[in-house]
Amino acid sequence: MAKQKKQPRPRAETPKGFRDYFGAEVTQRAEMLRTIAGVYHRYGFEALETSAVETVEALGKFLPDVDRPNDGVFAWREDEDDGKGDWLALRYDLTAPLARVYAQYRNDLPTPYRRYAMGPVWRNEKPGPGRYRQFYQCDADTVGAASMAADAEICAMLADTLEEVGIPRGDYLIRVNNRKVLNGVMEVAGVLNPDDPSHMAQERGIVLRAIDKLDRLGPEGVRALLGEGRRDESGDFTQGAGLSDEQARIVMEFVNAKEKINSRMHSYWRAKGQPDIVHDNDPTATALRAGGVGRSSMGGVDHTPESSSEVLVHTLSYLNDIVGSSPIGNEGVDELKSIADLLGAQGYGPDRIVIDPSVVRGLGYYTGPVYEAELTFDIYDEKGRRRQFGSVAGGGRYDDLVKRFTGQAVPATGISIGVDRLLAALREKGRIKAVTHGPVVVTVMDRDRMADYLAMVAELRNAGIRAELYLGNPKNFGNQLKYADRRRSPAAVIEGGDEKARGVVQVKDLILGAQIAETATLEEWKERPSQFEVPRGELVARLREVLAAHGIGQD
Amino acid sequence: MAKQKKQPRPRAETPKGFRDYFGAEVTQRAEMLRTIAGVYHRYGFEALETSAVETVEALGKFLPDVDRPNDGVFAWREDEDDGKGDWLALRYDLTAPLARVYAQYRNDLPTPYRRYAMGPVWRNEKPGPGRYRQFYQCDADTVGAASMAADAEICAMLADTLEEVGIPRGDYLIRVNNRKVLNGVMEVAGVLNPDDPSHMAQERGIVLRAIDKLDRLGPEGVRALLGEGRRDESGDFTQGAGLSDEQARIVMEFVNAKEKINSRMHSYWRAKGQPDIVHDNDPTATALRAGGVGRSSMGGVDHTPESSSEVLVHTLSYLNDIVGSSPIGNEGVDELKSIADLLGAQGYGPDRIVIDPSVVRGLGYYTGPVYEAELTFDIYDEKGRRRQFGSVAGGGRYDDLVKRFTGQAVPATGISIGVDRLLAALREKGRIKAVTHGPVVVTVMDRDRMADYLAMVAELRNAGIRAELYLGNPKNFGNQLKYADRRRSPAAVIEGGDEKARGVVQVKDLILGAQIAETATLEEWKERPSQFEVPRGELVARLREVLAAHGIGQD
Repeated sequence: MAKQKKQPRPRAETPKGFRDYFGAEVTQRAEMLRTIAGVYHRYGFEALETSAVETVEALGKFLPDVDRPNDGVFAWREDEDDGKGDWLALRYDLTAPLARVYAQYRNDLPTPYRRYAMGPVWRNEKPGPGRYRQFYQCDADTVGAASMAADAEICAMLADTLEEVGIPRGDYLIRVNNRKVLNGVMEVAGVLNPDDPSHMAQERGIVLRAIDKLDRLGPEGVRALLGEGRRDESGDFTQGAGLSDEQARIVMEFVNAKEKINSRMHSYWRAKGQPDIVHDNDPTATALRAGGVGRSSMGGVDHTPESSSEVLVHTLSYLNDIVGSSPIGNEGVDELKSIADLLGAQGYGPDRIVIDPSVVRGLGYYTGPVYEAELTFDIYDEKGRRRQFGSVAGGGRYDDLVKRFTGQAVPATGISIGVDRLLAALREKGRIKAVTHGPVVVTVMDRDRMADYLAMVAELRNAGIRAELYLGNPKNFGNQLKYADRRRSPAAVIEGGDEKARGVVQVKDLILGAQIAETATLEEWKERPSQFEVPRGELVARLREVLAAHGIGQD
Repeated sequence: MAKQKKQPRPRAETPKGFRDYFGAEVTQRAEMLRTIAGVYHRYGFEALETSAVETVEALGKFLPDVDRPNDGVFAWREDEDDGKGDWLALRYDLTAPLARVYAQYRNDLPTPYRRYAMGPVWRNEKPGPGRYRQFYQCDADTVGAASMAADAEICAMLADTLEEVGIPRGDYLIRVNNRKVLNGVMEVAGVLNPDDPSHMAQERGIVLRAIDKLDRLGPEGVRALLGEGRRDESGDFTQGAGLSDEQARIVMEFVNAKEKINSRMHSYWRAKGQPDIVHDNDPTATALRAGGVGRSSMGGVDHTPESSSEVLVHTLSYLNDIVGSSPIGNEGVDELKSIADLLGAQGYGPDRIVIDPSVVRGLGYYTGPVYEAELTFDIYDEKGRRRQFGSVAGGGRYDDLVKRFTGQAVPATGISIGVDRLLAALREKGRIKAVTHGPVVVTVMDRDRMADYLAMVAELRNAGIRAELYLGNPKNFGNQLKYADRRRSPAAVIEGGDEKARGVVQVKDLILGAQIAETATLEEWKERPSQFEVPRGELVARLREVLAAHGIGQD
């Protein structure tokens, strides 16, 4: 037997792929969730909170990366005496639990059931930079409504939500497609046989993923993946779908429709004076942007400006041509037209919501319309390179998810907002302050008078001023001021024995102090000292002045 | 080989011991968390959100029920190629992750570090009625402050928090004890040897659990558990600590101190005209309550009314006598005095916070002061029996938790609020509405005019009225009204072809309609019909009147 070893100290580490959130990161997310919940509520959606844990069988297998261990979920087996406990897992999204809830409570819930849900979800994936295994989602879904009006409502609500959290119109775009259109194209190309769903299912997966990567790889990259495969810059080879030239031609015709639609869109937006959707690998769009709004295009196909409904008519006619005689394909085009009409009637035009045939969405359960919201403004990294935020929300219709449980078809559609990405975007654009101020710090000059100091802090708080007492070792006064600095305190309060005897306190304006230390002249320093004495009875009033001068709101 | 079977349908069930929360259950909890966060923030605490998942070694083993499988946590092993992945687990509280965070980021965090955290925690326990395996906690802790001022601050903040969420003063009581006092008593009784911590450690656990059950079992029950053990009404036997008569006598003297303190407290509260703390098994207190406030006691020891500081002096002197010459015991009594003094100076008297030697707290990591908040108002179950809510918050000082990671002692103290219990209490007392109204429902009379109806709903929402379009099958109009009922809608709007042609809409006041159906006379019904016609342009204004008449706030 091995020798008994002393238990080593545990490592103080966040588990791999997880992270901690501090201060404003937490409160700003809470504020955003509250804002989003407010919009969802106004649309008549009801809150639902399911537990983080579901049975593995209830969750099902719909994650895109099927080659991951445990199918991408964190799972374990219940301890039962007979060794036959259920397999449990952390939810990987909020949609699968909704399907379970609707099936479980369908006799008690209204139909249609509009619900929203927000909270963390977990993916057992390989962590990467900025890619975490726990992240927040904020979903809204309508279960039991087959009408495209439900999808149109979800898209309109998503647009309203993005604007309400601080993304102005023009800085986002909601792109809508339909899985039935994609299936129609694949039927025409002979990759889908409606009578035999398993026929070429794997190839279809590769085709869908290839189309999904159009923005990143360009048409040549997609074409390579439709055929033998593609070798990227690093030398890695991705296996292709192995389609024949004719099959690939049909799919590429569809892919190119996107380019034609984009080109019409550019004209439309130029005419409206709105920014284009810009992709890094799209020289036409980049040139347009570089040339400025309103100037003529320097490349690509150009068109006379059209109305939004003309753009739509052209888009749908392209798609109709491509899906040809496929019934499922035509159904998809009709559904897209219906959504666009309903949205147009409410004033949601292509400056907010567009038909875009390249939208695919990774999850396996979508059956009809799919949506994706992307941010269209530019972000520059520390090296000045432009970066795209990509998708901040996505969703679609999943008519078969409840059926798994009940055997009866229940139509459903919904959206999921990636709150953490949205917050990151707003922070990078400076629309949310990255740092915030701390509380006023009352220092400790005389440790026998802690009760007095506690009472002073209570007085400030009761007056609505965020305040705290220094609770470290008070011996070294410099440490107390260093603490206040680290807390980003706007002010410190000092009451030694002398001040106490004279009925006064010292107030140190720490923000002004920092400014003076950096920039002030001697005159300014004399005129507006950052530390001053006030009568004890005026402490609250004078602190309020200091906070107001620095634009710090009170609680 | 067994025959290939068709995959059975998954069960639509919440996993055992978990539950779903709907509508107001979710939003009211969110509102309460927001209120609590507001108080914590005002006290200078900073938000922290750690992930739900921690390594098992970082969590440590501090749960009370050590005989549960997996030590009470949900755990699994990371998939790694070498089969040596970390063991991960869902956090069982928010304190263990805080200790990990402080150890991990100690060079970047201010010291002392005041932080709050809120979110679900998970316990792998046997579920029971009202006992779930996922529940919310809402914690505030101060790390790096050895001063009792940190503990006093936590207690004061807890009192403020309970009042801010809707528990009036007098309806709650925060009870404070100190583990060092308990250890002092055990040292005097010879159950604790400071030089050999492992000596009689198991017996000490039984003694602590016995004291913790004083309110439920009474002194006789505790005495039995100190000796051989106790058989309950059902016949189940709980093994005792096996203390000698003399050892048990010393512990019981301590237990009885609680009765003496209670008795003085009763006199104090009677003199103040405040309600007593009442326990079901305490005939004295019950009689006092039955006899009404201000009448003389019908049993037990009675005292001339004392001031709160006199009560405190007597309490501490009882405790001093019992811990005798134990250094650790005397330290504990001094700490209690210090907390009580600091609180008293801020006006937190024994009507809100009391010293109570029977408070133990189950978790293994406490080292000094321990706190517990209990609700003191009565709740009656459906059979008219009085029920106690018991503890809604608890905490204490845990000076060794960070040391596990770093080897260096870091003092820490904090509180955890059981938000779900608090919400249940407020609902049962009728202080939070259990049900709330739904949105206005716009009905569908003509399915070709969905776009018009969607525009109407958008108009209502833009006017701040929560509204939704009926998205089910519109064929049967009765179903649409049934849906509105189920949604608890205050009003429905109807616009058929005839109304459209005449430029009017019908408004159905569903709340008034329900009242009329139950109680109204024919005259009333004629005078104030629940359905009326309004010009289309006045729809928003008239709906606002209807909502205001029913006291329904707008968004």
